[in-house]
Amino acid sequence: MGKVVAAITTSVDGYFTGPDDGPEKGLGEGGERLHYWVFGGPWSYDSEPEGAAEGRLKPEGEDAEYLKEMTARGGATIVGRTMYEAAEHWGETNPFGVPVFVVTHRPEDEPGTGEFTFVGDFGEAIDRAKAAAGDKDVSIGGGGDMIRQGLEAGVVDELHIIVAPVILGGGKRLFDHFETSLDLKNRGVRQSRWATFMEFEVRR
Amino acid sequence: MGKVVAAITTSVDGYFTGPDDGPEKGLGEGGERLHYWVFGGPWSYDSEPEGAAEGRLKPEGEDAEYLKEMTARGGATIVGRTMYEAAEHWGETNPFGVPVFVVTHRPEDEPGTGEFTFVGDFGEAIDRAKAAAGDKDVSIGGGGDMIRQGLEAGVVDELHIIVAPVILGGGKRLFDHFETSLDLKNRGVRQSRWATFMEFEVRR
Repeated sequence: MGKVVAAITTSVDGYFTGPDDGPEKGLGEGGERLHYWVFGGPWSYDSEPEGAAEGRLKPEGEDAEYLKEMTARGGATIVGRTMYEAAEHWGETNPFGVPVFVVTHRPEDEPGTGEFTFVGDFGEAIDRAKAAAGDKDVSIGGGGDMIRQGLEAGVVDELHIIVAPVILGGGKRLFDHFETSLDLKNRGVRQSRWATFMEFEVRR
Repeated sequence: MGKVVAAITTSVDGYFTGPDDGPEKGLGEGGERLHYWVFGGPWSYDSEPEGAAEGRLKPEGEDAEYLKEMTARGGATIVGRTMYEAAEHWGETNPFGVPVFVVTHRPEDEPGTGEFTFVGDFGEAIDRAKAAAGDKDVSIGGGGDMIRQGLEAGVVDELHIIVAPVILGGGKRLFDHFETSLDLKNRGVRQSRWATFMEFEVRR
């Protein structure tokens, strides 16, 4: 059996978006800085780097290494509807290379493309993603609500917090309204110019 | 000139104390886990490890290395009154080995022991600590309010976040009510069993 891995990028002050995120605003005000590590350096919604608009990534060094490891391990991905909308449906094409389950209160909104599977609740998403992933891992890619639900339900084996070297001062905080105490175990850390990758095992 | 270094230990969810911290409650409920790295392993307020009550530390490996580096660099320390009280005045004896400035609205409360210098505001604390430190660094040791004031005032050169592998689910959050956006630069990271030490340079 694969593991369930929750992985998300946050600022040093714990936000996974800047203020005013959402459709047409992506990661919110100043939020592009969270994902410099994904694109290999600075970019913005106003002037994207070559390839960014099409989702072609050009990370380097430790950034590329982490993505490569996660890609090799991953067999299915779960995302929340809010993230799906903020990402503008990734241009209607699944960019993950594995089945993607979108958790939503309105599964009937699923587009007929076969690119994304809409499911009505988090538990169902976990079950179906595990079945789809087989021996590989299920990745909970965000947003914060999905990761909090996973931790709360006790189904997360690993938590990866990728810290971008920025203080945002506002936005959506990963651990807002999360009141459960959990013991973790350090699994390792690496750092690039654009991010610090902290990996934890969740103790049960 | 030395640098101003703000260093604090937080949980993965960003708390520097558990719930209900304060005099006789130290770092709050479950908060001891934040400082396993300082004492070389598990301890609690109910059954302290040998030496913990007297402030004798027994960190090992990367934990000891970080403390050694900080001790070598430090020339003066600033702490807030709340932290001073929560630590129960460190038994009325300065444990830092360098002059300590306690920021308080009531500087007249300064004990006559000469162990701690009480000052009436944060700016004065910075000025006096810099003068006392000479070529060495000024350390802002906490609590959160002191570190936020330092970042807000633009006087912090380095921010060190020491992340303990625990989710507390409540307590005092380092970045609560901090609404300024700042760009940082990764300076390096190390990890022990009990902590991940992230060091950032604050860009001006």
